[in-house]
Amino acid sequence: MTTPLRFGLFGTGRIGQVHAASIASSPRASLQWVCDPFVDGANATAAKYGGRATAEPADLFAAEDIDALIIASSTPTHVELIDQALDAGIPVLCEKPIDLDITRVDALRAKADAATVPVVLGFNRRFDPHFAELQRRVASGEIGALEQLAIVSRDPAEPPAAYVAVSGGIFRDMTIHDFDMARFFLPNIVSVTARGANQFSPAIAAAGDFDAVVVTLEAEGGELVTITNSRHSAFGYDQRFEAFGSEGMLQVGNIGPSVIRSYSTSLVEAQGAYHSFFLERYADAYRFELEAFIDTVAGEPSRSPGFEDGRAALILADAAELSARTGRTVDVDLRA
Amino acid sequence: MTTPLRFGLFGTGRIGQVHAASIASSPRASLQWVCDPFVDGANATAAKYGGRATAEPADLFAAEDIDALIIASSTPTHVELIDQALDAGIPVLCEKPIDLDITRVDALRAKADAATVPVVLGFNRRFDPHFAELQRRVASGEIGALEQLAIVSRDPAEPPAAYVAVSGGIFRDMTIHDFDMARFFLPNIVSVTARGANQFSPAIAAAGDFDAVVVTLEAEGGELVTITNSRHSAFGYDQRFEAFGSEGMLQVGNIGPSVIRSYSTSLVEAQGAYHSFFLERYADAYRFELEAFIDTVAGEPSRSPGFEDGRAALILADAAELSARTGRTVDVDLRA
Amino acid sequence: MTTPLRFGLFGTGRIGQVHAASIASSPRASLQWVCDPFVDGANATAAKYGGRATAEPADLFAAEDIDALIIASSTPTHVELIDQALDAGIPVLCEKPIDLDITRVDALRAKADAATVPVVLGFNRRFDPHFAELQRRVASGEIGALEQLAIVSRDPAEPPAAYVAVSGGIFRDMTIHDFDMARFFLPNIVSVTARGANQFSPAIAAAGDFDAVVVTLEAEGGELVTITNSRHSAFGYDQRFEAFGSEGMLQVGNIGPSVIRSYSTSLVEAQGAYHSFFLERYADAYRFELEAFIDTVAGEPSRSPGFEDGRAALILADAAELSARTGRTVDVDLRA
Amino acid sequence: MTTPLRFGLFGTGRIGQVHAASIASSPRASLQWVCDPFVDGANATAAKYGGRATAEPADLFAAEDIDALIIASSTPTHVELIDQALDAGIPVLCEKPIDLDITRVDALRAKADAATVPVVLGFNRRFDPHFAELQRRVASGEIGALEQLAIVSRDPAEPPAAYVAVSGGIFRDMTIHDFDMARFFLPNIVSVTARGANQFSPAIAAAGDFDAVVVTLEAEGGELVTITNSRHSAFGYDQRFEAFGSEGMLQVGNIGPSVIRSYSTSLVEAQGAYHSFFLERYADAYRFELEAFIDTVAGEPSRSPGFEDGRAALILADAAELSARTGRTVDVDLRA
Repeated sequence: MTTPLRFGLFGTGRIGQVHAASIASSPRASLQWVCDPFVDGANATAAKYGGRATAEPADLFAAEDIDALIIASSTPTHVELIDQALDAGIPVLCEKPIDLDITRVDALRAKADAATVPVVLGFNRRFDPHFAELQRRVASGEIGALEQLAIVSRDPAEPPAAYVAVSGGIFRDMTIHDFDMARFFLPNIVSVTARGANQFSPAIAAAGDFDAVVVTLEAEGGELVTITNSRHSAFGYDQRFEAFGSEGMLQVGNIGPSVIRSYSTSLVEAQGAYHSFFLERYADAYRFELEAFIDTVAGEPSRSPGFEDGRAALILADAAELSARTGRTVDVDLRA
Repeated sequence: MTTPLRFGLFGTGRIGQVHAASIASSPRASLQWVCDPFVDGANATAAKYGGRATAEPADLFAAEDIDALIIASSTPTHVELIDQALDAGIPVLCEKPIDLDITRVDALRAKADAATVPVVLGFNRRFDPHFAELQRRVASGEIGALEQLAIVSRDPAEPPAAYVAVSGGIFRDMTIHDFDMARFFLPNIVSVTARGANQFSPAIAAAGDFDAVVVTLEAEGGELVTITNSRHSAFGYDQRFEAFGSEGMLQVGNIGPSVIRSYSTSLVEAQGAYHSFFLERYADAYRFELEAFIDTVAGEPSRSPGFEDGRAALILADAAELSARTGRTVDVDLRA
Repeated sequence: MTTPLRFGLFGTGRIGQVHAASIASSPRASLQWVCDPFVDGANATAAKYGGRATAEPADLFAAEDIDALIIASSTPTHVELIDQALDAGIPVLCEKPIDLDITRVDALRAKADAATVPVVLGFNRRFDPHFAELQRRVASGEIGALEQLAIVSRDPAEPPAAYVAVSGGIFRDMTIHDFDMARFFLPNIVSVTARGANQFSPAIAAAGDFDAVVVTLEAEGGELVTITNSRHSAFGYDQRFEAFGSEGMLQVGNIGPSVIRSYSTSLVEAQGAYHSFFLERYADAYRFELEAFIDTVAGEPSRSPGFEDGRAALILADAAELSARTGRTVDVDLRA
Repeated sequence: MTTPLRFGLFGTGRIGQVHAASIASSPRASLQWVCDPFVDGANATAAKYGGRATAEPADLFAAEDIDALIIASSTPTHVELIDQALDAGIPVLCEKPIDLDITRVDALRAKADAATVPVVLGFNRRFDPHFAELQRRVASGEIGALEQLAIVSRDPAEPPAAYVAVSGGIFRDMTIHDFDMARFFLPNIVSVTARGANQFSPAIAAAGDFDAVVVTLEAEGGELVTITNSRHSAFGYDQRFEAFGSEGMLQVGNIGPSVIRSYSTSLVEAQGAYHSFFLERYADAYRFELEAFIDTVAGEPSRSPGFEDGRAALILADAAELSARTGRTVDVDLRA
């Protein structure tokens, strides 16, 4: 058994907790440092999962006992922390998005692309075992030429207004996962067409954001991708993926905590509600994401999305926003 | 287009109505005579589906314009009517059971087996398109050697007490269909083991009958068949069939009027209740049963169950009754 | 039993045959006249389903024994035949589309809207029992406020090149059904956004048409509709419909001829392929469409789509074509 | 966080490995001692999961640092080891069966029933989250009065001949799990009716054992339980459970590693094969079984099956064997 990889973690909010727990439960990882400007959060996380707590990012970059970093702090801090990690030569896994402003991303791009240490983006869904298997099977040619993807992604309930305000809008905050999933299958997207709606949430409308959107992507081979989002879903977390090809189709349906089917006088073959939260639906994905990152740090060929993937997803989100606002299809060149 | 086959029908109760409707809707059949001792029933049926009405069976045997007979009258009349049909040389389709008394069946056996006209038993389920396809696929070897059958058959609601009183008991009235379905796949059953229960119906218990039974059959190759019956089912007509073989399994599940799936806060993927009545579930089966009989009368090799099948099912029902009452496995020899 | 409605039928191609068969099998309808410029087709249809054959439309308008007309002839004849039916005061059921040219439709509009006899459009899918039930349940409020519709509609195989050439393009020929289905739930569509692709068919590409399209519709309440079409589908006719609302979701999935599930060493719970043709999938729908038309002619409130629905679907098809060609969302005003 | 419970483990075969892994992965447990007469196995297990290795059971009973014991050694050692654990006053979790000989079980019974430390039997399926939820829902009255249970349990492939030889036969080795599952819902079984077959395995037949069996149990309220077993299953581990009650039905179906559905030209809605091994299917159950044992040791009311449950299952297995050999229903009195 090799020595566990020693991690430093930025951010102890909801997603920071997920990563801390993944590190703690992996025999290949240990939590060495926890950093959060709210030092109480850092202390509590360190007490629970191990490591030293600090409010100062500089402490982590100065530490001698960190092999890898996870950036799960607030979005505006990502670019600066990646930059410093690159300077320090420490492998880094950064939560999406890199930033809400593509110009800040582009400013870091050359440096990140030239980095000799792994820079990995936290698009965890690529590591969901079902989506990953589906991607492998499509890549293996099981359904012939891939022609269409259909992604349905609906959150159980709308986020708090405070979150919406700093989220960057539904395309950059929520659809960004679906953009990356589309690119998991069809990396070179060439156009984005989007429509947005305000269907149920006065708070989201007041923030100038959409609570539901539909996006059509075209890939370079003419493949069509539809993404359907809503910020609420009465029946739980709605996460479906469908790949249609010349020879067949593959689907991942929804998953719930129970497989029991019930039969009553009015309804038959009924299952209990689906998972009510992304942490339950994607628990495995977060674990596998960490394992893949550890593999990459250990020198294996990376299976993880990188800086360019983070940039591409943001470009698509920006294009979707523009399309939804102007009623025009927006062409993109992700390779430029 | 050939001339329609001219039918005489005995019995205008529930099942007589089914046959009258099948005849009326088939371009290959016409209803010529309707006989019922309750002549009002005969008149009403003739008015609706065509033909002449009478209370006298003799009128049908004397008629010159009858090509085939359907016996859907009460069970005690079956043996005598089949006998007369054989004397008259008229093809006959008789509802199950031939009789509740095996000695009466055996008394007619030699004559029926030697008949030159078709004598067909109304085990309609063999003509359900799903069960028929399943049987073909098993026979084709799709699942290798057939090893086990599981038949679940539950009625939506218990029959009226008056019906129970003359039904001959659950094995001869209800399970008899399942015995025939078992024999559709495994004709030579060699032993019967049954357990009965009184789970919910005081009326059925008062009649000395079971309201739920479980039967295990063994076929000559050691194959095992389980039959599960109940006289009620909260979620509608429960009719499932499963064939397990050395290379795989084939199933027919339940069927309902709606394919819609609903998703709510508590239940997902829920379908509306199944068919609530055998007439809806087996509507196609009754039609195809008639068409197969017409084919047989027209000289094609018979695809229909015959007198021996009717006798075998009754022997199995008798054996099940004996087994349930004695707690012993009962060996049978259907070929004796 | 009332006297059957006496029908005159224009057109004896594929869809004409469907209507002839529906008429012949309904006790409430009889086929009185059959008209086709290819008089052999008219003769053959009349021989099979009844009625007199002619190559001359004028014969039908002059006939005294016609109560209702069905127009299933080639699209360019529709406007003229409706017009004459209106002049003759005969109720008419016309196949979609009314015409490929909206100006011809608009020229007839005032007269059709003012007509005192029923003018019904052949959008048969509204009469599919599953879609109809779903629409009733949505209308009843079962899923709360309707927010999103997802329609997937893929044909088993591309049509012959000769058909493509006169089809008016995929939007006017194929998607038009989906436009009408969207309007079955959300009549007032206000914008159309479409993308088209050439994914597999050189013949369709050569004709300047798309072989796959994705359309987003917005309704007046902000509801979003996605339509996904392909001219081929390896696994049979792919016809799915999903309504998402504030309180839940309702789905109609695909339907096949067999409900058998198979289990083998590599695949479990597998069903045989779906229906391979629209005539099988929508057999009931065509029958119920005819019955609804007969009801309307008999004076009941119409449950059928009318001229305005036919016009609206064409406007949406035109808008989709324009959107796909220009990369712009196209606003429409169906009530203008 | 409390101090982990210190475990001693007897047996390092397949099932011993499962328990060692469960202990190692639980923050509430630690592996302190590992005992196996094949000391290499003990050493390897201790090296992997912690603890000291020995070939001598006496070492464990003499150890001061053991809070609880798990007996996963060969069946003939169980009674003696439980006895010593009771003498030593150490809580014990023993794998099923207690013994193959009911007289040896009965000899220990009074002592075990009077024990002041927990004696728990390893019927892990009660802790499968799906079965456990189903039991809770039945107990809550969701389906009214429980009337029938249907248990299907088929192993992917027959065990090695050496295993069969010492297994005690299919009823005591395999069906015993299903007997316990039946008693999870209906503790007081009053009769056993069984049929056995030799359908495919010459080796099992040569050993005088059955390779497939069907059992009917009756519970004291007249409830009927059917159990269907086979020693092979082409499509993987077949583990289904169905509870039928006066108001409805609840089912747990099969579970596989993948939820992907595939669609091809011949098969639709197909899932990949089920789990191929009980360790995968019941991974969670083994973990939860350990946690429940730890809770019991910690003084919580036991949720685990105990000695009486182990004895009852063996009595049912013996009765099934007798029934299958004699063709008679065998009455049992589990409370005697």
